[in-house]
Amino acid sequence: MSKSASRARLADIIRTRSFGRGEITLASGRKSDFYFNLKPTMLDPEGAALLAELTYETLRDEKVDYVGGLEMGAVPLAGAIAQLSWLKNHPISAFFVRKKPKEHGARLSVEGLAKGESLAGKRCVIVEDVTTTGGSAIKAVEAVKESGAEIVLVLTMVDREEGATEAFAAAGLPFRSLYKASEFLNT
Amino acid sequence: MSKSASRARLADIIRTRSFGRGEITLASGRKSDFYFNLKPTMLDPEGAALLAELTYETLRDEKVDYVGGLEMGAVPLAGAIAQLSWLKNHPISAFFVRKKPKEHGARLSVEGLAKGESLAGKRCVIVEDVTTTGGSAIKAVEAVKESGAEIVLVLTMVDREEGATEAFAAAGLPFRSLYKASEFLNT
Repeated sequence: MSKSASRARLADIIRTRSFGRGEITLASGRKSDFYFNLKPTMLDPEGAALLAELTYETLRDEKVDYVGGLEMGAVPLAGAIAQLSWLKNHPISAFFVRKKPKEHGARLSVEGLAKGESLAGKRCVIVEDVTTTGGSAIKAVEAVKESGAEIVLVLTMVDREEGATEAFAAAGLPFRSLYKASEFLNT
Repeated sequence: MSKSASRARLADIIRTRSFGRGEITLASGRKSDFYFNLKPTMLDPEGAALLAELTYETLRDEKVDYVGGLEMGAVPLAGAIAQLSWLKNHPISAFFVRKKPKEHGARLSVEGLAKGESLAGKRCVIVEDVTTTGGSAIKAVEAVKESGAEIVLVLTMVDREEGATEAFAAAGLPFRSLYKASEFLNT
């Protein structure tokens, strides 16, 4: 399947399984009349395969050591990308960042690293399922930067186009999305 | 790579990245002098690919509609198995069960299903990364049974051999593991 055909097919799956209209309150507290819940796409066989394929294609030419993000949204993605990267003979390791520190005041812990393994000096891509203001991804960025890693890119599956581009630009972080909300709102 | 070679190679990865000795307290409150943390194997490229491959091989001949388990341990597994099953033209959908109910007293919610999609009447396999007493897996079993699903198998990556076999037998649930703790303790 060509990349554009894969992208169109994945858009159909997201539209059917992960997009809806209706009055909701976002994690940021904002009100909205539409929502994206990517879990039904990330855990659908075809959805999981296409998300991993399009993400891998986006990262393939960047020298990336690790891919990961904040629990829970990034976890199925990170696992699927790590697996596909092995099957493609271009291994990219994965991790995830806990939402809450284990002890009060401690920094957010990075999970998935073996004893003695560190992100220090490594090229990392932060992935996210849906991005609104960019706040969640920036929490993951901070935790990973504290480990001494270099952030190569923040990549989201769906950008709600509600301030993330500006927030990442202000933080000097390259930001890309597989899809924008407007692709689903205007159809 | 043959199945036995894959199994031996994955055992090496688990031994290196996910097994250790030392005084720890398990989620169940018990003390132990060894631990398994499967996340560094589940998020390692080769580890993720081999775990998904061996799990898929185990499930291939069972008519399985869904695979899933309790967050967090089952989430990377479920995503990787869903993806691999698509690549193998034998789609197996995935889900995960939240540890805490969204509202107090409500039942544990099953995530990953699209609007209108239900587990009612479906053949489900509960997966887990590490099993001690079987308590966590049984929480997932209960949540999924309440959805009207049929539990075909409980499959864990590593069985600590501390009562799960008996617990699942008492609950009338078939139980299998890819590995037993003794394979790592005696080497």
